[in-house]
Amino acid sequence: MNKSTDNPSLWSPLLNGLDPYVPGEQPATQGLVKLNTNESPYPPSPAALAAITDAAGESLRLYPDPESSGLKAVIADYFSVTSENVFVGNGSDEVLAHAFNAFFRQDLPILFPDLTYSFYPVYCQLYNIEYNLIPLNAQFEIDIADYQQANGGIIFPNPNAPTGIGLARQAIIDLLEANPNSVVIVDEAYIDFSQCSDAETSADSVASVIDLTQQYNNLLVVHTLSKSRAFAGMRVGYAIGHPHLIKGLQRVKNSFNSYPVDRLAEVAAIASFQDEPYFQSVKDKVIANRQLLVERLQSLNFDCLPSSANFVLVRHDQLDAEKLAEQLREHKIIVRYFATPRIAQFIRITVGTEEQNQLLLDVISTLLEG
Amino acid sequence: MNKSTDNPSLWSPLLNGLDPYVPGEQPATQGLVKLNTNESPYPPSPAALAAITDAAGESLRLYPDPESSGLKAVIADYFSVTSENVFVGNGSDEVLAHAFNAFFRQDLPILFPDLTYSFYPVYCQLYNIEYNLIPLNAQFEIDIADYQQANGGIIFPNPNAPTGIGLARQAIIDLLEANPNSVVIVDEAYIDFSQCSDAETSADSVASVIDLTQQYNNLLVVHTLSKSRAFAGMRVGYAIGHPHLIKGLQRVKNSFNSYPVDRLAEVAAIASFQDEPYFQSVKDKVIANRQLLVERLQSLNFDCLPSSANFVLVRHDQLDAEKLAEQLREHKIIVRYFATPRIAQFIRITVGTEEQNQLLLDVISTLLEG
Repeated sequence: MNKSTDNPSLWSPLLNGLDPYVPGEQPATQGLVKLNTNESPYPPSPAALAAITDAAGESLRLYPDPESSGLKAVIADYFSVTSENVFVGNGSDEVLAHAFNAFFRQDLPILFPDLTYSFYPVYCQLYNIEYNLIPLNAQFEIDIADYQQANGGIIFPNPNAPTGIGLARQAIIDLLEANPNSVVIVDEAYIDFSQCSDAETSADSVASVIDLTQQYNNLLVVHTLSKSRAFAGMRVGYAIGHPHLIKGLQRVKNSFNSYPVDRLAEVAAIASFQDEPYFQSVKDKVIANRQLLVERLQSLNFDCLPSSANFVLVRHDQLDAEKLAEQLREHKIIVRYFATPRIAQFIRITVGTEEQNQLLLDVISTLLEG
Repeated sequence: MNKSTDNPSLWSPLLNGLDPYVPGEQPATQGLVKLNTNESPYPPSPAALAAITDAAGESLRLYPDPESSGLKAVIADYFSVTSENVFVGNGSDEVLAHAFNAFFRQDLPILFPDLTYSFYPVYCQLYNIEYNLIPLNAQFEIDIADYQQANGGIIFPNPNAPTGIGLARQAIIDLLEANPNSVVIVDEAYIDFSQCSDAETSADSVASVIDLTQQYNNLLVVHTLSKSRAFAGMRVGYAIGHPHLIKGLQRVKNSFNSYPVDRLAEVAAIASFQDEPYFQSVKDKVIANRQLLVERLQSLNFDCLPSSANFVLVRHDQLDAEKLAEQLREHKIIVRYFATPRIAQFIRITVGTEEQNQLLLDVISTLLEG
């Protein structure tokens, strides 16, 4: 019998209503300057790459450690917490999905910014979680005064994406104090780019709040290795919080999804955390490149939102953003354009190497002259 | 403020009701003979390991191909189908989870055996899917006559786990014919161990039904690289079916979970499929080892269910199964015991190397003499 035609009844009814996420382009074509998905312009730690090569052997026939104990211990040590404060997953997206499931399926809607990481509403759809979007203020900042309402949880990236703007430590403390019965998730995917390594943390700083997890049992901080540790090609993320929150994440993971971090990802991540000088040098280079890029864009009359991340959201009053993105693409440079209200006249540029950034600036200069 | 105590209100209400899956033990202790989680006793293809080493470089800073196009093309070629017939995921567990979401959220309950892979009820819980358990017959076989009822889908492993018993090709065809409006998922995690490479496929054969996906638009076949390709330490699985089913899986994946297979897993999987002689030799060795193991267990008066997999489910009328598993553990051999009705007097033994199997037999002989 030949049944080679479509049969709509085979799909679950919900499938037809789905609105799939559109990730940033991963071009197959070589030779493009790729400044569109916030990857590191520099490679991962050579020690981490060597660890992968060492692990590419017979032991891959065996399942990974379901608890990722080795990696948890290294992360705990790195951040001066305990392994009971650490949850590890296959990328921060997976960690976030587990966290939504564990903490945000509440009677009240959760809160997050209107302009933010586009996966938050996706997870809400997945778990039937109601949410209220809280508009960024006129300067595209998160204003915690706008979050003073009953809620089932709060989440935001710090620095926020795609704006790059950071929220000061004191504001996060105020939010935690005001919401003792809500989990507050601070998604610090880009936090490593927020300050120079020698900066002191103060109430005004945009800096990691991992230390606050020791005082606030409602704070969960989520990190990824895809950005500052240059492992977008693998999948490792983690969360740090009170042991009660971590236990909740473990329970969700072990109930619905038992995939631990794979063996190669675990050894690579461990080696990355153990190579602090390399990490610092890459991070510092990206920050320096960003500062130079912003200065030069400003000198070309771009309006640049103040970035604490490895990207900048910028606009130019003589250049249509969508057209600019297309023109850059014709010159083999890819940036990210969002057809989203409020930011439809911006483009998001990932900070590249000095050479990549200069190439971008040269092309833009030519376009402005033309 | 110190809030270092637990706060139960922070968990979603559903968290308390969860019953986490308990995976097979992954012992940290070296020197154990590990026959408990159906891993390959032989390493992955040397060519695949070399591909990992080659890929452990600068490109890991970049996100993987979201479509895994290279791997899909290789799998399609290997099975003489097209890329439109292939879905790739991070392990067959993830592929199965997407398939439950895409196809099994129907008004009618889905059907699967009472003794089967323990993740099926987990996915039903995750997606609120009702299911009817269909008891295996007295010989622990799937009898498709028992599946003649209205349903929202059907899933079973072939060969089944933890019994190891395979279902003949003709029975699957009959099931597909009888259920044209239900998706039938055949989970072929262990199918490569079901026959020798020179066997001919007939109606009575226990063999892959991938070829039937070209005739039946309601058939989805799921495979993993964790068993016969010895990549349990990574996460790669795939599904083959009609393009309409594959489109449904893609839509679910892109709506809820955009994690493609990571860069190292993709290159390793491609190289594994391209090293057919190694694959065949490992598979044939495991099949030969199983036959020898079964013969010798039978000569020790074990009752062995007829296995088409890389494990055997066995019982002995003079040995309590749970106690036997404990005694083997004392001799540094780990097997799997299930405290499950009907099979509580069985142990499941993964087929090891000849040496591992002989060690197991020696210990059992001693126990029987003692």
